Amino acid sequence: MGEVWVELGEQRYPIHIGAGLLKELGGLVRRRLPQANRALLVTDSHVAPLYGDAARESLVAAGIQTTRAVVGAGESAKSLSQAYSLYSSCVKAELERSSVIVALGGGVVGDLAGFVAATWLRGIPFVQVPTTLLAQVDSSIGGKTGVDLPQGKNLVGAFHQPSLVVADVSVLKSLPRRELAAGMAEVVKYGVIRSEEFLKYVEVQVGNVLAGDPAVLEHVVAESCRIKAEVVAADPREKGLRAILNFGHTVGHAMEAARGYGSWLHGECVAVGMVAAAAIARHSGILQDTDLQVRLERVLERLGLPTRLPSGLEPQELEPFLRRDKKVRDGLIHWVLPLRAGEVTVTPNVAPEAVRWGLESVRR
Amino acid sequence: MGEVWVELGEQRYPIHIGAGLLKELGGLVRRRLPQANRALLVTDSHVAPLYGDAARESLVAAGIQTTRAVVGAGESAKSLSQAYSLYSSCVKAELERSSVIVALGGGVVGDLAGFVAATWLRGIPFVQVPTTLLAQVDSSIGGKTGVDLPQGKNLVGAFHQPSLVVADVSVLKSLPRRELAAGMAEVVKYGVIRSEEFLKYVEVQVGNVLAGDPAVLEHVVAESCRIKAEVVAADPREKGLRAILNFGHTVGHAMEAARGYGSWLHGECVAVGMVAAAAIARHSGILQDTDLQVRLERVLERLGLPTRLPSGLEPQELEPFLRRDKKVRDGLIHWVLPLRAGEVTVTPNVAPEAVRWGLESVRR
Ligand SMILES: NC(=O)c1ccc[n+]([C@@H]2O[C@H](COP(=O)([O-])OP(=O)(O)OC[C@H]3O[C@@H](n4cnc5c(N)ncnc54)[C@H](O)[C@@H]3O)[C@@H](O)[C@H]2O)c1
Ligand SMILES: NC(=O)c1ccc[n+]([C@@H]2O[C@H](COP(=O)([O-])OP(=O)(O)OC[C@H]3O[C@@H](n4cnc5c(N)ncnc54)[C@H](O)[C@@H]3O)[C@@H](O)[C@H]2O)c1
Repeated sequence: MGEVWVELGEQRYPIHIGAGLLKELGGLVRRRLPQANRALLVTDSHVAPLYGDAARESLVAAGIQTTRAVVGAGESAKSLSQAYSLYSSCVKAELERSSVIVALGGGVVGDLAGFVAATWLRGIPFVQVPTTLLAQVDSSIGGKTGVDLPQGKNLVGAFHQPSLVVADVSVLKSLPRRELAAGMAEVVKYGVIRSEEFLKYVEVQVGNVLAGDPAVLEHVVAESCRIKAEVVAADPREKGLRAILNFGHTVGHAMEAARGYGSWLHGECVAVGMVAAAAIARHSGILQDTDLQVRLERVLERLGLPTRLPSGLEPQELEPFLRRDKKVRDGLIHWVLPLRAGEVTVTPNVAPEAVRWGLESVRR
Repeated sequence: MGEVWVELGEQRYPIHIGAGLLKELGGLVRRRLPQANRALLVTDSHVAPLYGDAARESLVAAGIQTTRAVVGAGESAKSLSQAYSLYSSCVKAELERSSVIVALGGGVVGDLAGFVAATWLRGIPFVQVPTTLLAQVDSSIGGKTGVDLPQGKNLVGAFHQPSLVVADVSVLKSLPRRELAAGMAEVVKYGVIRSEEFLKYVEVQVGNVLAGDPAVLEHVVAESCRIKAEVVAADPREKGLRAILNFGHTVGHAMEAARGYGSWLHGECVAVGMVAAAAIARHSGILQDTDLQVRLERVLERLGLPTRLPSGLEPQELEPFLRRDKKVRDGLIHWVLPLRAGEVTVTPNVAPEAVRWGLESVRR
């Protein structure tokens, strides 16, 4: 069992990581939020039949009156209209300011339920119980919540830190392999931005990760959480350092936007985005580890992740979407580019040719 | 010209109060938010023709590219669907994280536009330009933003402090007298909760207020802002002291909810709510100034405000709505009750008979 704290002063909170933690959920919530007598348990239609009862029973056993709300599985649930119907669930569950919203699911459920918690009665406590690898290593930590608009992903949202994160790695057993791999893209990202040692660990353990070895998954999740927690604690509102977590995401988000997000998984787009960022860094002459792009491609491929754009998507189609990214300030895109394995920089000064070259190098 | 600062550490901001300030809006925004090159100016269909151009021209003259969005006048604009359409305006105006949303209007526009600012790209700066007395003395300060649901007012929202408040008292000239009086209910509230001296000032100046004397209005707005700013600074997230601002609001909100909010103005309901709270305090034996209820009734009546429930609304109809108030914790209503002019207390321990008695005493 691991425990990582996200150090945010008064808002500091623990991430519990381990196999079988789901049945301890109620006790953990009770201990962190002694005043929470009511919960709205939000989950999706895939996760509900697998883990909904276990989560609910654990909460109820801890004396927390629990109402369940099930949303459709998939990105389309991250909408204002879905938030609207969860607000109605909040009314029906009679949630008060001291009540809690528990998000049991992947990043979609976490972002959506977190947004509802951030905005219900101007903010009530919430607990993340991430059930995808992506959610365990990334989306459940850091307090970014939100929903999509037809015009773009995550355009509407709020910063709202969870009170507690409970990551039970044993639930990853039922996760489709493609989803597991997508989560690993973010894990590789942590290595590249912050720790060559961790990148090496991942390279060595790819086989065990894909085989679902619980000890390896626990280490992968804990180390990822440690890195993300450190970055978030240094910069909770994304005013500086936190931008490094967007490594691979500028191109990744543009791919999602260009394809009308849905066809490829987030992590798959990030995988391609990281390769593109390495290529841009190389063309800009700032990449010191010149083999990083090849190294990245190799580990991503072994994980079963793409390293090139989907067929039919031309590099130049991405360009208009790059400018709509939230990292744009005064019309300038802030790129996160690697210097070497374990270190990145954030810069708005990237020549258009370098960007074009980077995008060309991920053309299928 | 007055200037009151809301002291919230890094998030501290000034309230500028004076006659004719609207034409200085652009310069004030520029000085506070040098990075803001784009603005979305949100206003309503009554205010737009009166002050929309002046505000816009001032912003444009200061070099801020300004897009206007006009919502319908009245409480019904404070909805999720209206927020949704403002998000589309944000997309069209290409608002970035450093852009600003300017709310020009009463509390409805301020709450709605503030909520959109709180949640667009997870929060961008916003500026309040309150044009009703209620908004100048109350809703524009303190960072509470939100929208209503069919099930209740302000159920969805966020805390998001403005960067700047610009209160031009000369715009109050066009405000219907009923709206002016409604704003005065909150002014009377400040006297009762925090300053007998100010309450006395208001009692003496009722005639000049209703006649629209600019110097008197400026003092009334500035002193109200000073009191609200002091309370908000001591407790920005409403965990303690700030609850005193809800004096008169528990019953007031219940009245609004019971009538399907719309028929009576907020301030009119608060006026009745303050009388009821004084009666509850008296019946509970905690009111030391036993003539406070009569004194309150007198000044409210002179302002043209109601002191009794609307005809047809029975006191007992309010009871179920009292429990739905956000001040409810563990099923207990936290009442704000006066001890004497200038001092109130917050207590969950109020006998049901005292509540019933208080409500009976405002029966028409
Ligand atoms: N808030 C943040 O900081 C942040 C960071 C990264 C990504 N995100 C967001 O996260 C979302 C993607 O999250 P995701 O990849 O977890 O997607 P997801 O929530 O859609 O989950 C992926 C799929 O796996 C299913 N599933 C979840 N847990 C399962 C389990 N244990 N067993 C079997 N099936 C399971 C889900 O029902 C879904 O079909 C995106 O909306 C993205 O914007 C947010
Ligand atoms: N955020 C807070 O802390 C807070 C506090 C109190 C109330 N509120 C909210 O404020 C809202 C009520 O605000 P309000 O009373 O200002 O109502 P409002 O915004 O509806 O304005 C009242 C009317 O006056 C018109 N108007 C505005 N300025 C005018 C002017 N200068 N001349 C002529 N007409 C003008 C408006 O178009 C509207 O018809 C409610 O929704 C309430 O919940 C919020």
